Amino acid sequence: MLQPGLMMDRPLLISDVIEHAAAQFGDVEVVSRETHGPLFRYTYAQCAVRARKLANALLQLGLGAGSAVGSIAWNNHRHLEAYYAVSGSGMVIHTCNPRLHPQQLIYIINHAEDAVMLFDATFAPLVKGIAAHCPKVKAWVCLSEAANMPTIEGVANVYCYEDLIAPHSEQFDWPQFDERTGTALCYTSGTTGNPKGALYSHRAIVLNAMSDCMVLSLSSRATVLPVVPMFHINAWCIPYAAPMVGARLVLPGPRLDGASVYELMEAEKVTISAGVPTIWLALLQHVEQNGLRFSTMRCTAVGGSAMPAALIARFSDDYGVEVRHGWGMTETTAVATLGSLSPQDMDLPAAERHAIVAKQGKSVFGAEIKVVDENGATLPRDGASQGELMVRGQWIVTGYFKGETSPLVDGWFPTGDIATIDAQGVMQIRDRAKDVIKTGGEWISSIDLESAAMGHPAVAMAAVIGVKHPKWDERPLLFIVRKPGQKVEREEILAFLTERVAKWWVPDDVIFLDALPVGGTGKVQKGDLRKQYGGVFS
Amino acid sequence: MLQPGLMMDRPLLISDVIEHAAAQFGDVEVVSRETHGPLFRYTYAQCAVRARKLANALLQLGLGAGSAVGSIAWNNHRHLEAYYAVSGSGMVIHTCNPRLHPQQLIYIINHAEDAVMLFDATFAPLVKGIAAHCPKVKAWVCLSEAANMPTIEGVANVYCYEDLIAPHSEQFDWPQFDERTGTALCYTSGTTGNPKGALYSHRAIVLNAMSDCMVLSLSSRATVLPVVPMFHINAWCIPYAAPMVGARLVLPGPRLDGASVYELMEAEKVTISAGVPTIWLALLQHVEQNGLRFSTMRCTAVGGSAMPAALIARFSDDYGVEVRHGWGMTETTAVATLGSLSPQDMDLPAAERHAIVAKQGKSVFGAEIKVVDENGATLPRDGASQGELMVRGQWIVTGYFKGETSPLVDGWFPTGDIATIDAQGVMQIRDRAKDVIKTGGEWISSIDLESAAMGHPAVAMAAVIGVKHPKWDERPLLFIVRKPGQKVEREEILAFLTERVAKWWVPDDVIFLDALPVGGTGKVQKGDLRKQYGGVFS
Repeated sequence: MLQPGLMMDRPLLISDVIEHAAAQFGDVEVVSRETHGPLFRYTYAQCAVRARKLANALLQLGLGAGSAVGSIAWNNHRHLEAYYAVSGSGMVIHTCNPRLHPQQLIYIINHAEDAVMLFDATFAPLVKGIAAHCPKVKAWVCLSEAANMPTIEGVANVYCYEDLIAPHSEQFDWPQFDERTGTALCYTSGTTGNPKGALYSHRAIVLNAMSDCMVLSLSSRATVLPVVPMFHINAWCIPYAAPMVGARLVLPGPRLDGASVYELMEAEKVTISAGVPTIWLALLQHVEQNGLRFSTMRCTAVGGSAMPAALIARFSDDYGVEVRHGWGMTETTAVATLGSLSPQDMDLPAAERHAIVAKQGKSVFGAEIKVVDENGATLPRDGASQGELMVRGQWIVTGYFKGETSPLVDGWFPTGDIATIDAQGVMQIRDRAKDVIKTGGEWISSIDLESAAMGHPAVAMAAVIGVKHPKWDERPLLFIVRKPGQKVEREEILAFLTERVAKWWVPDDVIFLDALPVGGTGKVQKGDLRKQYGGVFS
Repeated sequence: MLQPGLMMDRPLLISDVIEHAAAQFGDVEVVSRETHGPLFRYTYAQCAVRARKLANALLQLGLGAGSAVGSIAWNNHRHLEAYYAVSGSGMVIHTCNPRLHPQQLIYIINHAEDAVMLFDATFAPLVKGIAAHCPKVKAWVCLSEAANMPTIEGVANVYCYEDLIAPHSEQFDWPQFDERTGTALCYTSGTTGNPKGALYSHRAIVLNAMSDCMVLSLSSRATVLPVVPMFHINAWCIPYAAPMVGARLVLPGPRLDGASVYELMEAEKVTISAGVPTIWLALLQHVEQNGLRFSTMRCTAVGGSAMPAALIARFSDDYGVEVRHGWGMTETTAVATLGSLSPQDMDLPAAERHAIVAKQGKSVFGAEIKVVDENGATLPRDGASQGELMVRGQWIVTGYFKGETSPLVDGWFPTGDIATIDAQGVMQIRDRAKDVIKTGGEWISSIDLESAAMGHPAVAMAAVIGVKHPKWDERPLLFIVRKPGQKVEREEILAFLTERVAKWWVPDDVIFLDALPVGGTGKVQKGDLRKQYGGVFS
């Protein structure tokens, strides 16, 4: 007969993360770019003190267990305090993506029933525009001190964060409750229909953060810079992971351009970073154009969309920065798979190594993956069989906030990504199910085509969509943004691709744009391209 | 109102660890020293297959959920398979320390109600001596193939492991159950009274193993050699941690002498190891005497008893091997605190660095520490206030197997160790409560005195006990084992100490021995010294 172990029964709670850091890494630094420009520095011990003050302030505003607190904010120290104050006191932190359309923002604030909204001064105009449509918000709190408060005419109940927390006690007894309690809410920026909310539990976040520490080798000797926004799946849980092991945390605030990120990395001796490929592209362009080097950076984690092999090669070969390619989505509380070169891989020629790094890696402990065919049958792990990627584990959603139906299939979450898994367990995203190009009964991966096009030295950005075609069902159409001063034309690009992909993969046309349409999380909005160019082959 | 998150509810089970390794690191190697000598090699995928076969075999032997399976075995691959087969199928793996007195061994086997005993051929004589006294054991399984089976006369129901598992299926559906289920049982080798059992849950072991990965930076690029025995608090959970991240695992079998450990480290390119100080002392002596170097070793974790600063200095300064000093006990499922030099510490002079490394480090995420005075009041974290170390957390016992009373005090486990915690949260064990020397109303740390004596170049080992004294209550008595060929005498040792410790700390006498009495887990048995020498100052 099974019998319980004789172990203390203590919940995995987010309040324990910051209190652990305060007790054991109390003097480790958090560096934060203020919204108005300067760098701010303090320690985990001071962060914990201010999180407790904020928790007291939220209670005084009338909030209680289960209340929702929204945020429209950059990666900065006040946002970090809010993570701990809100979750620690049994409330729900609802991180809003400021790049959403205001109508979507209004929808999610009302859907989440946010009682307090925290926002950075940058977003004062946005708040001014939406406040009247969010009747349940009883306080709009600007993450600022009095001197830098913006003026927001016509919005009642605007508070200054520093004034709000100043009178409150530095003591707060974090409540103890079930670790399965929901505590962080993140909406998908769905391209169709209303955004859907993933409600993460304390347990899911703590376990995912432990996993982050494991797979990224975070430690008290690391300085970690999450460029990935705290409104984007909780910055992949790095703001929870770093304090667990006493890693120094650098928060970049609003400055996410290549020059600012580079300067922060150098000035603060950052050793590891994380973000989407567009950030790294901008960073690399800055570094290349100015003949710079990285002094301390050793590793960067990449996710959100696929990083082209050419970009991986430049980071690794030219700058000695290891790229760790990962995969996750709003529904998986950040990282579900992460790549790593094995000791055997390290001996391979550079191009073969980069091809491995370009894949999305192995599932981390706590998450399981499989690919299935259209009937739900598991496909072989042969690196070739493509099917929908399914995921299950400790930090995967069962459904959506206030949703009525479960998306699960036999207990697995269907991701909508088309992927392969090889014999070593390495997963590669081949395409989004909706982006894959179906031509003459075969599939073309838009991601693979884009990656190939990005290998051309004159190409800054590339996107491929499938366009309806009278004969072949769909045919690929390529969009190119040239690097500044480059003059490459259609024929040269197509000739370049002909040498690199199967002949029937070569796009039927190339369109040159000044920029690609980019959405809230930095991803190319292929839906916009389809809307505008979807009829060009008809 | 609190509401549950919308996350999959999946238990943290040990079966998931080996199946994760099989699926994601299936080709990563496990290297194991066979009891009869040669090295055995296979992969995590093959380990999982054999664990499933063993699980089937145990069911056929009539065992079921909650049954206990004992082991008297070295660190080897069959013992590893047993860890997963037994726990994975909802049973309890009871790891026995073969160095226990046979009467204690009989006691714990009967107390645990072991239905099957697994043992290595080394321990056949031991099994022969105890089998008749263990009536509940229905099968004695030798971890061997038929060719190397020992003869054990007079014991019924002896099985050969390979023959036992051979006919069984490679498939086994690991059951799903509550993660708080007890699954590993380890008895303290108490010096007084009967041994007491700590019953670890799946959750505690999985979380502790995740913590191991975090604090030791285990990864798929590491090769880890746990010298600490699998019968000693589950080898500090390293056999669970390595497969989580796909670290290569090297198991040393019965050969734990300096030369064998060194050769294995070199031959198998070990990067990280773990064990008690006596092992590292023997290893270092071998390396020094033979003018050897470490090619791949970068780090060794040390626990079980305090590692003298002199030994730390030699590993670090002479050989470039970082020492990570930790603390834990049977009641804490292995590691509760672990030392690490911060980036600031790295710039300190060598002696100051070693002094930091000589401390037991910071509590890891999942465990909390405090020191209290005799009234239970928390003492300041000033590095000077000594009191009893208290611990609580995810993997700390609430009581003992079949015990009737709980040892907890206000929810904390009292460790019986006297410690300090400094402002940075670094804990230092000053002494066992029973070993601290109380003299003239003050305390002398036997550990600090031993560490100072170990700094003398002619001293191989040192031990200090408090001996009853007519005037001072107790006075320290020092025991020295000289290095081979060294001639140091009493006066020189006392003069050496006089320069290094407070005058009233200097021992009243020195006794030279050929060896110190060592117990089952490699610790000096001060009880034996007290029994023999406790009257010398009376």
